Amino acid sequence: MGGGTLRLLRNNASEIAGKLGFALEVSAVCSRSVLTNPGEAVGLHPQAHRTPHWKEVVESPQVDIVAELIGGTGTAKRIVETALAAGKPVVTANKELLAEEGPEIWRRLASNGATLGMEAAVAGGIPVLNALREGIAGDGIDALIGILNGTSNYILTEIERTGAPFDRVLREAQDLGYAEADPSADIDGYDARSKLAILAAMAFGEQVSPGDIPLQGIRRIRTIDFAYAGRLGHTIRLLATARREPDGLRLAVRPALVEKNTILAGVTGSYNALWVHGRGGDTFYYGKGAGPDPTGVAVVSDLMAAARDLRRKGTTQRTPPFGHTALAPHRPVSGGTEERQFYLRFRVRDRPGILAALASRLADQGVGIEAVLQEPHFDKQDLPFVATLEPAKRAAVETAVETIKGLDFLVDEPLALPLEPTLAVA
Amino acid sequence: MGGGTLRLLRNNASEIAGKLGFALEVSAVCSRSVLTNPGEAVGLHPQAHRTPHWKEVVESPQVDIVAELIGGTGTAKRIVETALAAGKPVVTANKELLAEEGPEIWRRLASNGATLGMEAAVAGGIPVLNALREGIAGDGIDALIGILNGTSNYILTEIERTGAPFDRVLREAQDLGYAEADPSADIDGYDARSKLAILAAMAFGEQVSPGDIPLQGIRRIRTIDFAYAGRLGHTIRLLATARREPDGLRLAVRPALVEKNTILAGVTGSYNALWVHGRGGDTFYYGKGAGPDPTGVAVVSDLMAAARDLRRKGTTQRTPPFGHTALAPHRPVSGGTEERQFYLRFRVRDRPGILAALASRLADQGVGIEAVLQEPHFDKQDLPFVATLEPAKRAAVETAVETIKGLDFLVDEPLALPLEPTLAVA
Repeated sequence: MGGGTLRLLRNNASEIAGKLGFALEVSAVCSRSVLTNPGEAVGLHPQAHRTPHWKEVVESPQVDIVAELIGGTGTAKRIVETALAAGKPVVTANKELLAEEGPEIWRRLASNGATLGMEAAVAGGIPVLNALREGIAGDGIDALIGILNGTSNYILTEIERTGAPFDRVLREAQDLGYAEADPSADIDGYDARSKLAILAAMAFGEQVSPGDIPLQGIRRIRTIDFAYAGRLGHTIRLLATARREPDGLRLAVRPALVEKNTILAGVTGSYNALWVHGRGGDTFYYGKGAGPDPTGVAVVSDLMAAARDLRRKGTTQRTPPFGHTALAPHRPVSGGTEERQFYLRFRVRDRPGILAALASRLADQGVGIEAVLQEPHFDKQDLPFVATLEPAKRAAVETAVETIKGLDFLVDEPLALPLEPTLAVA
Repeated sequence: MGGGTLRLLRNNASEIAGKLGFALEVSAVCSRSVLTNPGEAVGLHPQAHRTPHWKEVVESPQVDIVAELIGGTGTAKRIVETALAAGKPVVTANKELLAEEGPEIWRRLASNGATLGMEAAVAGGIPVLNALREGIAGDGIDALIGILNGTSNYILTEIERTGAPFDRVLREAQDLGYAEADPSADIDGYDARSKLAILAAMAFGEQVSPGDIPLQGIRRIRTIDFAYAGRLGHTIRLLATARREPDGLRLAVRPALVEKNTILAGVTGSYNALWVHGRGGDTFYYGKGAGPDPTGVAVVSDLMAAARDLRRKGTTQRTPPFGHTALAPHRPVSGGTEERQFYLRFRVRDRPGILAALASRLADQGVGIEAVLQEPHFDKQDLPFVATLEPAKRAAVETAVETIKGLDFLVDEPLALPLEPTLAVA
């Protein structure tokens, strides 16, 4: 990420100076790779100070703005806190730190005139925080629907495109560098959840703890699920959603069925996207969510904003980092009255009476089956089929699934996915 | 537009105050409809001054920020100039004024500390100017591809969806209020051209006169063109394009064939969209391009930005209105080396030798035919068919079309549309 930022600062130097009216210069760098690999230092002024000690950068009188691009919540947190304590604006791409500590950091810096640029932490090169904080600040936001993890979206759309099994697609993604050796942060939804917490703070002014957001990853999605979703006119995406409801702000990260031929279903590969449903209108933002160059654009744009403020007035924090002057506490919403259609996929050892057993467990919770789909399949010892449910509360469906789990004809736990309501277009 | 802005200021008052830390109040209004129709004054403070004289608003010491929402280049221009001369920031939705006079207005206000908010002038509720000016300021932009006129996009996609003829769809759009009684500004491309001039200034820092941008509207698009485009795997959209090329900035507004299953082809109805191709990454923005509420969001967001600056520092113009500290002159690019595939649609009185005559006129300009498509058709006196051309320079195709125009078997002038190169996705 540091490399992409340095490269952009060099390649776009004339545009940047043309926009700012002055040049942005890197005066000090703390980076192991810059110290050991001169190729990484492309774009770095020969006089720039290079050091293995981060304090030398943060405390240098030559340094007006600090960019924290190392990630994690240990050293990164100390860098951010030290810089802000010195009144220096900070630009960061660190979503874990912001999701866990952002409001705390923001409370501390609120009084000292510094600010925090964090565009790179959510949806990489897509300026969604800027849009929520300023571009559509005049609107009241009712809902956000995001595809915020490029690795998960790549895996899902590769399964859909090639019909290959999950494990093979994951291995290929790892070989291509799209997924980490330990893929959990991406495919189990933790990364998307951190980003949703930041987006929710920005859009709704509530201080959200990621741990309070219900989470379901994509590990249990199978090739057969795309076949069944396709028969229903849908595809499957890992969605990060926030909805303002009568009882509060409802947040979730989980895979859902999304209608084909919608703009959200058109988001394939490692792209990210955000749909914003406001009172004044809907807007949609799309682009690369990760990678050195897209993330570098976000970092450099934040550096430019901080530099403008410093150059013009000597202080920053023109707009509060989270958009609102103060964040309200977030009360996680559970239960609720919202009803939704569900997709239930079963794998069973075939025998008579299975459908009756499932239907009665669902009926016990007041949940009706709308349709049953079964693709031709030859392994009667592991037979997949799908039931779509009539609109029901999530809690009722989850309770029914719990009672179904123990049935002896099941090869695997049932997979329940909501059908995402179609977004109005045109 | 004024009505939508007043409604949003009322409906979103708590969000706005929560973000700003203070309230935004309308202290004076000059509006015929507010004076004659109390329903229009919803959200207006009872003490707000109402007057038929714009100078009373602009010159009132109670007024810190002026919103010009009347349109046109006469009175609107005087309002904007008077407010800026008084050092008051101006928010406007007036694309004609900005496209024709924006850089001149900007030069005048550069020194006096005021600023110009113009988000509402381009793509309505989609914060594309904010994205270019700040959100992705760190990137160098290589190309923009916009669908910037909702009326034209509605007409094109209705023809595609229903198969109805152009004239009937236009009449329906007029009945629904989507098109004006005089539809020329929309369907002949003038509106999109004004917006492209503003976008080009923002993205590339060049002062573009709309009259220098090649222009072609959608009047000659017929239902049959969608049938032929569909056989080629394409649809038709009115595109506003800007590309940085070796010989300069190439701008155009014209209908083009766009590959189906791309995100741009998915923009239907009265929606607007902008694809930005930057060195650091591609981003895409989508939403309602017109209407009181989306435009109101843009106006109110700009009012909030101006209010933040005034409240905090007593002056505005933190970021230059057009993003760059100075605009360079734009030198219109003609000719050039770019080659593209073209779609040529003919209507002829059938007789032997037509294809040979057309092919020889094209070959005279070095242009080859790739394929000929003909749908079943029974009127031999008005027979439509399509030729797709091998990649060629626009100038060669246009010269060939000129020599073809005089051929006696033609019922109508040939229609030439470029095939837009497919945008890389995933």
